Amino acid sequence: MANNITWHQSTITKSDRQKLNNHQSAVLWFTGLSGSGKSTLANVVDAKLHAQHIQSYVLDGDNIRHGLNKGLGFSEADRKENIRRIGEVAKLFVDSGQIILAAFISPFYEDRESVRKLFQADEFIEVFVKCPLEECEKRDPKGLYKKARSGEIPEFTGVSSPYEEPVNPELVIETNQLSIDEAAEKIIAFLKGKKLIGG
Amino acid sequence: MANNITWHQSTITKSDRQKLNNHQSAVLWFTGLSGSGKSTLANVVDAKLHAQHIQSYVLDGDNIRHGLNKGLGFSEADRKENIRRIGEVAKLFVDSGQIILAAFISPFYEDRESVRKLFQADEFIEVFVKCPLEECEKRDPKGLYKKARSGEIPEFTGVSSPYEEPVNPELVIETNQLSIDEAAEKIIAFLKGKKLIGG
Repeated sequence: MANNITWHQSTITKSDRQKLNNHQSAVLWFTGLSGSGKSTLANVVDAKLHAQHIQSYVLDGDNIRHGLNKGLGFSEADRKENIRRIGEVAKLFVDSGQIILAAFISPFYEDRESVRKLFQADEFIEVFVKCPLEECEKRDPKGLYKKARSGEIPEFTGVSSPYEEPVNPELVIETNQLSIDEAAEKIIAFLKGKKLIGG
Repeated sequence: MANNITWHQSTITKSDRQKLNNHQSAVLWFTGLSGSGKSTLANVVDAKLHAQHIQSYVLDGDNIRHGLNKGLGFSEADRKENIRRIGEVAKLFVDSGQIILAAFISPFYEDRESVRKLFQADEFIEVFVKCPLEECEKRDPKGLYKKARSGEIPEFTGVSSPYEEPVNPELVIETNQLSIDEAAEKIIAFLKGKKLIGG
């Protein structure tokens, strides 16, 4: 099959798009337990970037599962494929010149590393959204921990399935110690420091 | 499973992004035989949009198959899933405020209609890239028709697998009658006429 297909170099390149947008493109990959605040944080960062006229967009588990990954379940194999597809979509967005914010539990080190390998070194920013399990379980915004404890949801990360912490994440955000705004500003400052965005 | 997930409304909406970009977002869905000029045309339109500072990006069969749809083959079932995933990715790009140009043979009416249904009426623009089979086969830019005739490639659209022509496409572009530039301008004029882009 691979013999029948060739990679078409677009006339317009990633670099052309970055030049037009006046910022670099990259993926912010938010990983952490359910309830740690990944999606909320990604959306606040997205809003701050948007206010600075930066092309950015949020992918999160919930909206991806209704669409692209509809039909995939929560088994380890399906989770792997779930993360793989999201990584590939993030790559397309980065190629299109955007800063893409991906917020997924993504509990397995190997799966996250596979995604990292799709990108250049400075394009993949792993954001470990760190929050103690007890705190996440206390928050339980969707009542999922309760269902996991009762056995209604099998293989739930942190309860009946492991969460493998990032080894060398670019950023660690402790959401039980920072306000959402402080956390978002820390990420914005990182992007500025790396000269991915201006200011 | 559906009970455990909810759609997170982004703080920043599609409409916010369109306002920032100063143009609407939509998908141009290029369908036609292999060799009809879909990818070439999509890339030329993309370059013209880029020159007007419009956020646009090309998805095509070749680059998608190396990434997101790696592992899918050319059977009818895999082609269906191929098109479904591309439709969902296009939807994310439209939500992100871009004009996304998708260039795929997409030979089956039903599959294209499934994609159309993902979008609002004015967001999905089906572009039938029309060119007689004999002409496409004469061009045979990747030597695929030759392989299809010899039986080396099974189920090849137009040779051993049907191409179902669009019934009511928004645009028909006859690439054996127009130059690439004329064809691209026809599409740009359509986008302006629909007020999807300015000018």
